[in-house]
Amino acid sequence: MSAAPLPLQSQDFPAWYGQVVRRADLAENSVVRGAMVIKPYGYAIWEAIQRELDARIKATGHENFYFPLLVPASVLAQEGELIEGFAPEVAMVTEAGGKKLDEPLAVRPTSEAAIWAAYDRWMESYRDLPLLYNQWANVVRWELRPRILLRTSEFLWQEGHTAHETEDEAVAEVLTILHEVYADVVENVLAIPVLRGRKSASERFPGAVDTYALEALMRDGKALQAATSHYLGQGFPRAFGVTFTGRDGRPQHPYATSWGATTRLVGGVVMVHGDDAGLRLPPAVAPYQVVIVPIVRDDDRAEVLAASAAVAAELRSAGIRVRLDDRDGHRPGFKFHEWELKGAPCRVEIGARDLAAGAVTVARRDTGTRTTVSLAALAGELERLLADIQRAMFAAALAGRVRRTARPETYDEMIAYLREAAGFARAAWCGDAACEARVKHESSATIRVLPLDERPAASDRCVCCGAAARSVAVWAQAY
Amino acid sequence: MSAAPLPLQSQDFPAWYGQVVRRADLAENSVVRGAMVIKPYGYAIWEAIQRELDARIKATGHENFYFPLLVPASVLAQEGELIEGFAPEVAMVTEAGGKKLDEPLAVRPTSEAAIWAAYDRWMESYRDLPLLYNQWANVVRWELRPRILLRTSEFLWQEGHTAHETEDEAVAEVLTILHEVYADVVENVLAIPVLRGRKSASERFPGAVDTYALEALMRDGKALQAATSHYLGQGFPRAFGVTFTGRDGRPQHPYATSWGATTRLVGGVVMVHGDDAGLRLPPAVAPYQVVIVPIVRDDDRAEVLAASAAVAAELRSAGIRVRLDDRDGHRPGFKFHEWELKGAPCRVEIGARDLAAGAVTVARRDTGTRTTVSLAALAGELERLLADIQRAMFAAALAGRVRRTARPETYDEMIAYLREAAGFARAAWCGDAACEARVKHESSATIRVLPLDERPAASDRCVCCGAAARSVAVWAQAY
Repeated sequence: MSAAPLPLQSQDFPAWYGQVVRRADLAENSVVRGAMVIKPYGYAIWEAIQRELDARIKATGHENFYFPLLVPASVLAQEGELIEGFAPEVAMVTEAGGKKLDEPLAVRPTSEAAIWAAYDRWMESYRDLPLLYNQWANVVRWELRPRILLRTSEFLWQEGHTAHETEDEAVAEVLTILHEVYADVVENVLAIPVLRGRKSASERFPGAVDTYALEALMRDGKALQAATSHYLGQGFPRAFGVTFTGRDGRPQHPYATSWGATTRLVGGVVMVHGDDAGLRLPPAVAPYQVVIVPIVRDDDRAEVLAASAAVAAELRSAGIRVRLDDRDGHRPGFKFHEWELKGAPCRVEIGARDLAAGAVTVARRDTGTRTTVSLAALAGELERLLADIQRAMFAAALAGRVRRTARPETYDEMIAYLREAAGFARAAWCGDAACEARVKHESSATIRVLPLDERPAASDRCVCCGAAARSVAVWAQAY
Repeated sequence: MSAAPLPLQSQDFPAWYGQVVRRADLAENSVVRGAMVIKPYGYAIWEAIQRELDARIKATGHENFYFPLLVPASVLAQEGELIEGFAPEVAMVTEAGGKKLDEPLAVRPTSEAAIWAAYDRWMESYRDLPLLYNQWANVVRWELRPRILLRTSEFLWQEGHTAHETEDEAVAEVLTILHEVYADVVENVLAIPVLRGRKSASERFPGAVDTYALEALMRDGKALQAATSHYLGQGFPRAFGVTFTGRDGRPQHPYATSWGATTRLVGGVVMVHGDDAGLRLPPAVAPYQVVIVPIVRDDDRAEVLAASAAVAAELRSAGIRVRLDDRDGHRPGFKFHEWELKGAPCRVEIGARDLAAGAVTVARRDTGTRTTVSLAALAGELERLLADIQRAMFAAALAGRVRRTARPETYDEMIAYLREAAGFARAAWCGDAACEARVKHESSATIRVLPLDERPAASDRCVCCGAAARSVAVWAQAY
């Protein structure tokens, strides 16, 4: 690990981000441009996210399956909007087993085509519906401007693909996933507050009737799309000829949804919670919630290490994820610094004097506060502290978002605000793509969501053109 | 589900296997030749295997990470034996983002090359060792003769890749994985007895110094390699220029291992435990350990369904995985048949008369036995029964293997036995590849393992050539 200080967030956020990802051992670039190696510490965060998402995906009635990585080019092209949207990003296998293939195989950029090409075999009548399935997979999208963890040529995700008898059921599914799966995990596990809303037409998933999304605000004032849930209507079923026999005995197309969340969430955790000292991890996803650093001298080494190991065992049996950092050859200050950089929520310092006094020092990563806690009360106190850190980190992130959310009164005010990526701008919008395009052209900002929690008043006027407002829109520059 | 009976195992094992896989909803072929869709019921079995393997991989000190899918052809070619072994099976991405790539990218057939190309950055001194890492991933190998779940052009697996300071440590790692991770899961979770041993030189992983494997015997007398654990020596570190500073202050190459287990284990479960009525699942991996089938008439429908739901809830709270099959429109006999086909270990039948008598009928899938169990004792009795089924299935599989293991006394006897795929043949071997090749040529059988639990006596002679024996070898035809 380099000893040089991190760049300051306020001076060079991209450099700060890149160094935190690398020096906290989350991920590194691979030899293939735009593809990353997710290192063990970063992957442990992803595993926690997977565990939490998977539990909620199953609790809402879904099962996992697995579809192949490679999709014939002709199958991928069967739904027009999908292929139009993804063609510029697709990687193609043209040779295999030493021979040129008769038909190129696309490395899946997403699996709607492969899955809808199979779903016709999976349903005969309305009794077979809904199909509620999900897969954990890797996908490849050839990105022009890759950024580690946020926009990579390969990423890991889950993709849900469901089929329903009615439109109402499909729309209800899309919202269940948005609220009960995604928002619950992002807010209550990752401690990242999100706006929930619909996308404007220009930001919809290719082939979707409606795209719902969660949008989070990073500490540099840019937005990150945290997850999406798409209502696909009957477009894919129609393109792939999928029908079932309805209650009236006649064939009809089912209604489709798809939804996904990706490894970019790990990058979101970095950019929402990190500070100038490095990463700060919410306890619910921290690989180590508590790091114990023994403070040893030559004459008390064995005693302090044994006591530290005993404390670690006690905390583990209380269900806390503990790392005992008993590495030789590094001074305590070095270890403090390293675990600050890696964002461990709590540090416990144990030395001979502490043991004699029956109390140890506990430091919180989020606030930097250090307190003395009696050894007898340590497990209970850490449990309380971890819960408090989880709440405090969400509250701090929410306060940051509130502080960086403007309600500009004029177009010029809004453009000036968005140009400097000062945060979210909430303003009424007429619904016209021309207004949306003008804002994008003049500020690089896009409509992140039309939030579900706010509708325009009857008197509201579009911030761009002054026409009657049809929605409230939230604009920002985005990752 | 088709109502036609399954082919008999004894008459056409491959047809039986294919139909069980399809009709029990484990997997189906995809539009890409040799690639499969793993359906939810089959994937749930794989998830159970993953859970059990992952817990043991972590308990033995390993962490998970993730390396990219695509590997530059030049990187893949850097270790000569690896590329020689895998070149005929590699799929190549030659176009991406609408352009021809400067260098083709191989879809990983295995990740030694990608990982060893990175490991040099991950170690400076002996203090950084061992590196104990694993990844869960998909790999692509273009198979000439694909067979669903057993040999597919894409499969899912875990691959461990470790680096050690000394040869002794690396060899110990290889054996820890073989015994404490793989054999423990395959025998105690999948109820499949395995032979543990080393491979002969001709069956080694490309680039390995030694390959250790678990071999299981299927009900048709053919062997299935259940998992492999490779001691790689210093070949990969040398090919990729990976060094660390040793205790003597001088640079040296670490010692490497790699090890993997795949979705073919699901196919192994089918072929070891299945019978003419379909699948039989060991309780430890069954998606549903108990299936409740309500027996309803028009006048007791509500009562029986309510009681069945209450029983299901009680069993779930006892930690049993339960499926209440309350589907309309199917008679009980249809459901019995379907869950036999799908291998659910226990079936509970609940009708109005049973409820009045305070007892229900419980049927075991493995033996077909039906017994009456009082409702009050049901949860406890099922727990006992599931544990008993798990043991009984292992014992039955072991007895089958013992019955189908021969110790031929002459070469001709052995060849006749192996030609008809009658099972494992155990015999002394001189260690000469020419003898091994002769057996293969005359019987299609290969040496599956040189078992760890048996060494030849000083007087033993090679079954093929009569020269002094160097090993005991276990031969069989294999999947």
